[in-house]
Amino acid sequence: MKPYVEMTKEELQELRKELSAQYKEFQGRDLKLDMSRGKPSAEQLDISMGMMDVLSSSDDLTCDDGTDCRNYGVLDGIKEAKELLADMMEVAPDHIIIYGNSSLNVMYDTVSRSMTHGVMGSTPWCKLDKVKFLCPVPGYDRHFSITEYFGIEMVNVPMTPTGPDMELVEQLVAADDSIKGIWCVPKYSNPQGISYSDETVRRFARLKPAASDFRIYWDNAYTIHHLYDNEQDHLIEILAECKRAGNPDMVYKFASTSKVSFPGSGIAAIAASENNLTDIMKQLKIQTIGHDKVNQLRHVRFFGDIHGMVEHMRKHADIMRPKFEAVIETLEKELGGLSVGEWTCPKGGYFISFDSLDGCAKTIVAKCKKAGLVMTGAGATYPYGKDPHDNNIRIAPSYPTLPDLKQAMELFALCVKIVSIDHILSGRA
Amino acid sequence: MKPYVEMTKEELQELRKELSAQYKEFQGRDLKLDMSRGKPSAEQLDISMGMMDVLSSSDDLTCDDGTDCRNYGVLDGIKEAKELLADMMEVAPDHIIIYGNSSLNVMYDTVSRSMTHGVMGSTPWCKLDKVKFLCPVPGYDRHFSITEYFGIEMVNVPMTPTGPDMELVEQLVAADDSIKGIWCVPKYSNPQGISYSDETVRRFARLKPAASDFRIYWDNAYTIHHLYDNEQDHLIEILAECKRAGNPDMVYKFASTSKVSFPGSGIAAIAASENNLTDIMKQLKIQTIGHDKVNQLRHVRFFGDIHGMVEHMRKHADIMRPKFEAVIETLEKELGGLSVGEWTCPKGGYFISFDSLDGCAKTIVAKCKKAGLVMTGAGATYPYGKDPHDNNIRIAPSYPTLPDLKQAMELFALCVKIVSIDHILSGRA
Repeated sequence: MKPYVEMTKEELQELRKELSAQYKEFQGRDLKLDMSRGKPSAEQLDISMGMMDVLSSSDDLTCDDGTDCRNYGVLDGIKEAKELLADMMEVAPDHIIIYGNSSLNVMYDTVSRSMTHGVMGSTPWCKLDKVKFLCPVPGYDRHFSITEYFGIEMVNVPMTPTGPDMELVEQLVAADDSIKGIWCVPKYSNPQGISYSDETVRRFARLKPAASDFRIYWDNAYTIHHLYDNEQDHLIEILAECKRAGNPDMVYKFASTSKVSFPGSGIAAIAASENNLTDIMKQLKIQTIGHDKVNQLRHVRFFGDIHGMVEHMRKHADIMRPKFEAVIETLEKELGGLSVGEWTCPKGGYFISFDSLDGCAKTIVAKCKKAGLVMTGAGATYPYGKDPHDNNIRIAPSYPTLPDLKQAMELFALCVKIVSIDHILSGRA
Repeated sequence: MKPYVEMTKEELQELRKELSAQYKEFQGRDLKLDMSRGKPSAEQLDISMGMMDVLSSSDDLTCDDGTDCRNYGVLDGIKEAKELLADMMEVAPDHIIIYGNSSLNVMYDTVSRSMTHGVMGSTPWCKLDKVKFLCPVPGYDRHFSITEYFGIEMVNVPMTPTGPDMELVEQLVAADDSIKGIWCVPKYSNPQGISYSDETVRRFARLKPAASDFRIYWDNAYTIHHLYDNEQDHLIEILAECKRAGNPDMVYKFASTSKVSFPGSGIAAIAASENNLTDIMKQLKIQTIGHDKVNQLRHVRFFGDIHGMVEHMRKHADIMRPKFEAVIETLEKELGGLSVGEWTCPKGGYFISFDSLDGCAKTIVAKCKKAGLVMTGAGATYPYGKDPHDNNIRIAPSYPTLPDLKQAMELFALCVKIVSIDHILSGRA
């Protein structure tokens, strides 16, 4: 195909007519497709149903160390669960705390605690005139919601194919002691599916922040969420790297089993240095008598160990892989060579990122919606919902069935074409 | 028996010798008894084991409204769980939000949110010079820990047999707009087992606080935790009473199934007015994608409805009742008529409160510990751990077996006697 920009006005108008007819046809189908969130599909949930059978009334709900999981106690998680999640997070078991059902909640809590109590003895952020976070963009909308909720000013840092623009990150954190954190999804990032390069991770570990209470918020949400067996991105483990670089306390690492077992009914964890964990425990002992140990035990009994968990993730991959491939194939087939957009080809995670022509994303998403396809809102991948180029759209292939997804992507590509033509034509008018 | 104070020095010294010999004998038994916390016993946990069987891999984990409990979504709890807990909390289902595994965490969260974001638009408490809470004493140590953690000044209000001293509460909240809350365990209170009288609840609902963001923190932890079928305390429902009094927004009500199903693996909830819930939801949607719906469904399937839950509580009562009775019997038998202490006789809840002679509580608890019996730390029932009279001791009969409990109470009574004699003798010296 010829790039649209090289086509004449007449050619584009002619094409526009054809595409409009196709769009009308789509509207006639009365579609109800949802690609707005990174939700696992029902098929994926089914593979974890065995979790409902591992604890029955005839089972002993006691840990190896004699703890009765049915009663109060154990603030930081049962030993077995710490081992399992430590292996998942690639850290030592005594460097993690197991939380409740959601790592988002742990991140919220971490920011909230810093607001009211500071970080390892620093001034509580609520007492400061200005607190800022760096936000690699495009990024995860729910990260940005947390910092926005607490009135923290968000500063955009562009993503590159190897992670955030580290030169900019280095400059900013060194120059401004009001910068207290940076949100990172370092592996199969949301929404681009980018994994930070070795150099990027090393530069993170060697940051020289002006603020002693600056922390890297390392949300390793997709740590074992590969699509392929032999083509997996590898990430340098950040806690160890920070320690080697002489900055052991500079990072909080978050993860959960939300997209391993059941979203919302999994277990979450934070990993950090001993100093940070001691700081966190001061809060935790006030905040709760302990998290849900029965559910921790359920996860341990179901997965057994990290090998069991990795084998389980292959089942997820078998369901996700064809979906990712269908998205990429449709984009290549429909939009390849047209120069109306670019997209990523991740090897894991939950998202594919699409960059349209500047100024077209909102219109494309709106056009999809009018034909029954809900995409993540345009702008959602930027702080305050403001995409300065209005060009980024997050594609979440996991939830629809494969036939629905194929249909959705055809519709999406069609909307991209139509909106791109309108954009090009309006530019020439 | 003659009151100790009416005995001569010689009589007391003689008695002291006998009691010392008995104490030595106890020490020889090498006891390891724990009455420090209101933990259910293993026997109580066993009656909830059926909960492990209600959801299996062959069950449908879908709600009546079609919600798949295994996936993300539903911020405020599944409809069925809201109905169940609403019945337990005696409010309408649309006036509650279901949370995670712990009501303590919900209370912490409520205070934390008020610190950073205020209450329904008020100035965030962290921006104020001074924030105070009223604390009916003796009370629940973990309430006091939360307010202390946030630097909130705690003001003691004496408990009476009908609840907190309401004249004092009314005066204080009307006069001082830095008073933002009061901690209440209104039914079978911790540690006294007192239920607030009708008049007390009505006066609570009619408070005229100087601060618009003053809230009653109504921790109805023992709402259905009766010991007897036909002798149950009844509490006027506070949300309805506040509404009738024209103060619909003045109360947050908390509860959980911690001592109904499994402590730490139950579900918790807050009940409040629509205005308050709207305020809370603004936070909740940032904080989490939703709480553990599978566990909510598990509770619904196990209990069925409030009748099922009430029947279940009778099983708890059958285990708890003999323990409470054993404590009271031992106290009456060993200490009756000696005028060395007073104790409560609750009809529900988890605690019995013991008041020793002034200045004796710490020594009694220490003496128990030296013979292998761990009681709740003396002073724990007061803010900052400071019991001004050093006379209150919380007795938690639930955890030990009945034979252990009887032994523990004999030892306790013995320690009370010895320490009281020493106290009386030292006063005469």
